[in-house]
Amino acid sequence: MAYRIGSGIDFHQFAEGRELWIGGVKIPHHKGALGHSDADVLLHAICDALLGALSLGDIGLHFPNTDERFRNIDSKLLLKETMKLVLAKGYKVINVDSTLCLQEPKIKKYVPSMQMAIAGILAVTTDDVSIKATTTEEMGAIGRQEGLMAMATVLLQKI
Amino acid sequence: MAYRIGSGIDFHQFAEGRELWIGGVKIPHHKGALGHSDADVLLHAICDALLGALSLGDIGLHFPNTDERFRNIDSKLLLKETMKLVLAKGYKVINVDSTLCLQEPKIKKYVPSMQMAIAGILAVTTDDVSIKATTTEEMGAIGRQEGLMAMATVLLQKI
Amino acid sequence: MAYRIGSGIDFHQFAEGRELWIGGVKIPHHKGALGHSDADVLLHAICDALLGALSLGDIGLHFPNTDERFRNIDSKLLLKETMKLVLAKGYKVINVDSTLCLQEPKIKKYVPSMQMAIAGILAVTTDDVSIKATTTEEMGAIGRQEGLMAMATVLLQKI
Repeated sequence: MAYRIGSGIDFHQFAEGRELWIGGVKIPHHKGALGHSDADVLLHAICDALLGALSLGDIGLHFPNTDERFRNIDSKLLLKETMKLVLAKGYKVINVDSTLCLQEPKIKKYVPSMQMAIAGILAVTTDDVSIKATTTEEMGAIGRQEGLMAMATVLLQKI
Repeated sequence: MAYRIGSGIDFHQFAEGRELWIGGVKIPHHKGALGHSDADVLLHAICDALLGALSLGDIGLHFPNTDERFRNIDSKLLLKETMKLVLAKGYKVINVDSTLCLQEPKIKKYVPSMQMAIAGILAVTTDDVSIKATTTEEMGAIGRQEGLMAMATVLLQKI
Repeated sequence: MAYRIGSGIDFHQFAEGRELWIGGVKIPHHKGALGHSDADVLLHAICDALLGALSLGDIGLHFPNTDERFRNIDSKLLLKETMKLVLAKGYKVINVDSTLCLQEPKIKKYVPSMQMAIAGILAVTTDDVSIKATTTEEMGAIGRQEGLMAMATVLLQKI
């Protein structure tokens, strides 16, 4: 049986002149997410949840934002590296649930593409990768559109 | 065995002239929660956690805030609809854990009523529905009493 | 089998003239965390996750901040009391995953000490206690270093 749970949270500021990558998908928007990598807040939260479930450290440990190898890197590569660590520990993903907190843009129509991108890497079906979204009802830094946040929980099982 | 986990988060602003519904219970307070439905932040977080565990979309997909059918609706009805979807997928609820983040009012004395309201809908005992509360120590938008937030995690099992 | 999940979140303000205790470890910093106890945000989040998994109330119920017995108390004692309640219910901890959200200081080098302190109390190995950290990218109250936040999820199993 041998289940484990993990949870992750990540934040990025919005910035002019950056691309907006969420869940492995490029989303048209007048602002992008600021970060050392492609600043994909959802993939980072999922990486952290996977690492956390197996006590493998965090995304900052494995992919430090001071390392030139990770500058503007596609975070799908970080998720792939993370998944290798999960498999090396002898675990598989049962399901991932996640929530994006952002005031704009609406991301609903991009969710199926995100699910496909993530499910492929995690070796699960798209039904095992849930991506939800909510605003913060215009409250706080996220409500003022200074940035966005993602949270993810994962359930793993020993293979 | 076949477990699945889900997590949800929801935010609502406080507003004059609105009722304050939390966990299916009306709470006396000089402000209420602003929203299209009754703006029950706890039930919305639980709905989202249930939907997320089974990759059924999110509360905004099922109960859009542009739909007149849901104006000022009792969120217990939304939770009932959500639970129907869970059962239709062949799953039952093992337990729900949740936390309310709000500066005021104190909600401790209403927790048993909330547990009863929720447990009845989820077909579990009140011991399977945990409702905790914390302030944000006066920090941020919630600390300034602009609004409140709820988080929920659920564990489901295949029937 | 009989698994249960729990989740906790806690907030504390930074304040001059206070010690900074995180995860049971004293961390050198020019500010500490404000609270009635030692204000250990991580141990409080873990206590709440453990209590929540078994619907035992919350940390405010068991260790009220109006009780002189808990003034400046070492939160490891609160975690020990919480663990007694978990065991009395007939459950053991499978794993804990947690994330600290704070802008400063960097806590990475203290993580192994935190894991040892917590694992000992929870009767698990250090590999079953994950502690991750992230900034909020300078956003919001935590980004302005007004305080810090911790989130924890736990998986319990019936003994």
